Amino acid sequence: MNASAPAAAELPVSITTPSNTALHGRDGVVVLPQGLSLHHGGRLEELRVAWHLAGPSDGPLVAVLGGISAERIVSAEEGGWWHALVGHGRGVDTQAFQVLGIDYLGGSGGSTGPGRHDESFQTVSTFDQAAALLAVLEALGIQRLHAIVGASYGGMVALAFAERYPQRVERLVVTSAGERTHPLSTAWRSVQREMVRFGIRHQDSAGGLKLARALAMATYRSGREFAERFAGDPTRDAQGVLRFPVESYLHARGEDYAARHIPAAFLCLSESIDLHHIQPSAINTPTTLVAVMEDQLVPLADLHSLAAGLPCATLHVVSSAFGHDAFLKERELLGPLFSQALLAPVSLTQQALP
Amino acid sequence: MNASAPAAAELPVSITTPSNTALHGRDGVVVLPQGLSLHHGGRLEELRVAWHLAGPSDGPLVAVLGGISAERIVSAEEGGWWHALVGHGRGVDTQAFQVLGIDYLGGSGGSTGPGRHDESFQTVSTFDQAAALLAVLEALGIQRLHAIVGASYGGMVALAFAERYPQRVERLVVTSAGERTHPLSTAWRSVQREMVRFGIRHQDSAGGLKLARALAMATYRSGREFAERFAGDPTRDAQGVLRFPVESYLHARGEDYAARHIPAAFLCLSESIDLHHIQPSAINTPTTLVAVMEDQLVPLADLHSLAAGLPCATLHVVSSAFGHDAFLKERELLGPLFSQALLAPVSLTQQALP
Repeated sequence: MNASAPAAAELPVSITTPSNTALHGRDGVVVLPQGLSLHHGGRLEELRVAWHLAGPSDGPLVAVLGGISAERIVSAEEGGWWHALVGHGRGVDTQAFQVLGIDYLGGSGGSTGPGRHDESFQTVSTFDQAAALLAVLEALGIQRLHAIVGASYGGMVALAFAERYPQRVERLVVTSAGERTHPLSTAWRSVQREMVRFGIRHQDSAGGLKLARALAMATYRSGREFAERFAGDPTRDAQGVLRFPVESYLHARGEDYAARHIPAAFLCLSESIDLHHIQPSAINTPTTLVAVMEDQLVPLADLHSLAAGLPCATLHVVSSAFGHDAFLKERELLGPLFSQALLAPVSLTQQALP
Repeated sequence: MNASAPAAAELPVSITTPSNTALHGRDGVVVLPQGLSLHHGGRLEELRVAWHLAGPSDGPLVAVLGGISAERIVSAEEGGWWHALVGHGRGVDTQAFQVLGIDYLGGSGGSTGPGRHDESFQTVSTFDQAAALLAVLEALGIQRLHAIVGASYGGMVALAFAERYPQRVERLVVTSAGERTHPLSTAWRSVQREMVRFGIRHQDSAGGLKLARALAMATYRSGREFAERFAGDPTRDAQGVLRFPVESYLHARGEDYAARHIPAAFLCLSESIDLHHIQPSAINTPTTLVAVMEDQLVPLADLHSLAAGLPCATLHVVSSAFGHDAFLKERELLGPLFSQALLAPVSLTQQALP
């Protein structure tokens, strides 16, 4: 870590790490014993950020950030969550680029967050996630990222990072994320959070989380995909309750999620999405935006508006029955857009001016 | 009641009423002690259908049916639920037409349905609601309705009625209802039903119903309306939980609903929506269809497809930020369409052939 680097002033804490392993390995945890003052008030007394690197260690470094369920293992070669777009020969080619992933603050992974039996956590902003990413860059001695590729919540964090730390990233590739969230998607998420709190109140937080995730799944895809996959008649379950084809899918996804995630982490990150609010005009970083026409959570109009507000942005509009989840599925559709955005020269006039 | 009327064969039970009041008053309950065999199997041992009449007793009779929360008091003059479209000088003019409303089977009103503490009820089809309406017509000695005006679930019941009892209705006016429901809206409703069952399981059925209704509200309106009404920052409630502007609205609506409705009735009618399945080609009744472009629950494509499948239909497409709820709000937009549909002569070639 270089204490005289410009970014030191941007993150008002010094950075220490427990061992060299964390600094020089390919997977580790950055620890800031001084903690972090949070954007919306409150404070983390200790900041831990779990990170992971993949790809050639001399390749340009790309931070890759996903939805609130994502974690630091990203690439196809490692069985990561973004196998469709990150890996050998994919949109973010791990033969050319070194890829950095982190676990989000307030999440269910290795970074600072709630325990399984906590009922709530601090209020965490996308700016706080940006600070967590910066802490990792500092610890790894990385002055400037070649790019941040972020989708959904990760796209919001990418924008927040570029607003706060313009010198630390050369370009953004942002899919399905806007300046702030739409009140209709806030409505759907606020009901999900109430379900989780309802479960906690009745000593069944896993049950509440399962329901919340089932609802979330019904907002991630498009009506077109559901119409193609889930036509057909219902059947009765063992209790005699009618179950429609789509219902079995939603509940299976809900079960799976509840087994792997912490209820208070879901509350924290879901809320963080709805608190997201950046200033597009303050972001000079060249940005490639990708909008999905069928996205129910981030309407096309919101990405048009973001593109208009960013000083240096290119908007690609694609059509996908996977809706908000297109970034997890559309290898052929998004791959070329991502690789082009990562390879294109960023002209001097487009560069961020500190 | 005329036992030799053609419809007697259509409804395989004879009809008795407890008193002349029920037959000749303006509000009553038709009772069939023989009960009703239900479309999906099962049987109601006794059928009770609460009905209500408004408007001039010599006016052409129009049955008016709404969503699953609707009940038999309809018109503006009586403080009914469809005050925007039914009343003096409105789309269904109660100075010209006599208006018949019913409480749905399986609902929270005066017709056969679950009690407040029941956990479930029978499986009720839109065809069963049509049979309930027919029972009222029989009891009141009405051979043929001038029209059925139905929206949402009521539109489905109107279609089911015309398929089963073509001689008993001259025309339909159907808003925001299709041949069957869309898997994406089934997804949203199946999560709502699971919330109610979750509440019942944890001895908090009102809490589950409140959440279910909050979610339903987030599907009734459009993103455009929510964006206009609910922009702005959240505040913290007494427990320190962040509450977004849209959230207060959803939960207030949920509270209000839970106070007035029976959880098992919600389950029954919500499920009935998802079971709805009529054969358009079997419906010869002249039908005016109204589609709302912003309807999240009944996509425009589904009404185009219904219009194409019905032998005699006219489709009007309107735009309203109220989405699926447009029929409750858009007096000026829908009023002229309704009154025109009710006044237009139905030509002989358009009439249903038995």
